[in-house]
Amino acid sequence: MKIMKYAQADPRSFESESVKGVTGRVAIGREDGARNFCMRVFELAPGGFTPRHSHDWEHEIFVHGGEGEVWTGTGWEALGSGTVLFIPPSEEHQIRNAGKGTFVFVCLIPAGPPEL
Amino acid sequence: MKIMKYAQADPRSFESESVKGVTGRVAIGREDGARNFCMRVFELAPGGFTPRHSHDWEHEIFVHGGEGEVWTGTGWEALGSGTVLFIPPSEEHQIRNAGKGTFVFVCLIPAGPPEL
Repeated sequence: MKIMKYAQADPRSFESESVKGVTGRVAIGREDGARNFCMRVFELAPGGFTPRHSHDWEHEIFVHGGEGEVWTGTGWEALGSGTVLFIPPSEEHQIRNAGKGTFVFVCLIPAGPPEL
Repeated sequence: MKIMKYAQADPRSFESESVKGVTGRVAIGREDGARNFCMRVFELAPGGFTPRHSHDWEHEIFVHGGEGEVWTGTGWEALGSGTVLFIPPSEEHQIRNAGKGTFVFVCLIPAGPPEL
């Protein structure tokens, strides 16, 4: 059994033209013996956003805190504490912070793709 | 893409000798097209607890809010907002509310076992 605060996991920062203000952590993954799916936790600073992209695996997302938005392909939808979001494989998506504080969400992917 | 507050999912209450004050919801599952793993959200009322049991699939847990504890096989460990918990297959476990408010956690399982 592994028990820890997510913030204790090693952080990785993402900054480029397509991604801004994103810190990601693998909270539960292969190194822990998780064979089927992987839990990552992302923090988006104010103004931060993830890349607009699609891929052939799904996301299962739970919003822990802050105010965000997701690009659905036709517009932006609000995300807040307690929102759940299922993005099926191959659907274009992007998530951004829409508030003044940190936006925090848990994002799970199946085993196979890079964990972070 | 599915977007909703977890509380909008149908609740199922658990009350028996071995479980008390537990409300569970399937937030993302087979009906949504989630083929690999399933997201459930559990609320434990003050004094509430899940059964002490083990099974041959893992749990990946993220604590959203409140104060709880997990039975590790040798004792109780504290769980709070932002705690992540990986319970490998076949490890005995039980979760209880240790606070005065509702204890809320997200618990994911692989596809195959009953979703709730």
